[in-house]
Amino acid sequence: MLSQTAEYALRAVVYLAQHPGEPTTVEQIAKHTQVPVGYLAKILQQLARAGLTSAQRGLHGGHILTRSPAQITLLDPVMAVDPIHRIDRCPLNINGHGHELCPLHRTLDNVIAAVARSLQAVTVAALLEDASGAAPLCGAGNARPATAAVALPSI
Amino acid sequence: MLSQTAEYALRAVVYLAQHPGEPTTVEQIAKHTQVPVGYLAKILQQLARAGLTSAQRGLHGGHILTRSPAQITLLDPVMAVDPIHRIDRCPLNINGHGHELCPLHRTLDNVIAAVARSLQAVTVAALLEDASGAAPLCGAGNARPATAAVALPSI
Repeated sequence: MLSQTAEYALRAVVYLAQHPGEPTTVEQIAKHTQVPVGYLAKILQQLARAGLTSAQRGLHGGHILTRSPAQITLLDPVMAVDPIHRIDRCPLNINGHGHELCPLHRTLDNVIAAVARSLQAVTVAALLEDASGAAPLCGAGNARPATAAVALPSI
Repeated sequence: MLSQTAEYALRAVVYLAQHPGEPTTVEQIAKHTQVPVGYLAKILQQLARAGLTSAQRGLHGGHILTRSPAQITLLDPVMAVDPIHRIDRCPLNINGHGHELCPLHRTLDNVIAAVARSLQAVTVAALLEDASGAAPLCGAGNARPATAAVALPSI
């Protein structure tokens, strides 16, 4: 339903939200989110382009979120890397049909709109505060390993 | 959100529902739904494999629905050609995590479940009976052209 790219972007953003103010290298994020490094690097570029993350260069450089987790909804990373497209005009390009949708495409557009609303209704902060006590992202709640702190930055 | 394959399958099923009891060739369906013929032929194979359509060979052969439009929901063609997958276990394969989902993946699974429920709640018959009076599928409400009736069947 959501693309793998979108799901990976969400993993990365949730991981960064768990490490506020700590510039984190792509290798560190990749390790803890289990996303291939090269794939993740491209996703981080898209997140940065959308203004959700920024990259700091240098020895202690890395990626950080530019906003607090309370100001990032689950829709934001998705729209940054693999946007959800509403059906806003007849996909069959029927002359004179234009923005009037037939029942099939109106129904599908309603479903798409509901998905966007559902993702927009949940902030990253809400995942972090989840009452279940589980780590907000599978396996990524652990402290970063000591070895990662001396890894060469690659942002 | 929905794949192009799924959307094309829905177009084909709605078109067939508009022509009950009329075996329809892949070329006819392709023309009215604006789906490439080769692509559509593969989709029709998948719909047949799922039991939604059947193909009748011969001069007046073609594809028909095997059930009434009231017994086909929008979820059926989607599941036949490009299934919606629930997240039923930890996508990061965390040891000991298994079927317990973290807040991120539980939230995403809830969204996926809602999409499936929304598609399942609408039958193809409901699209045909839509009160707006619009053709249920853009442009496909027209009668089949006379020339199509003598086209060689290709099912």
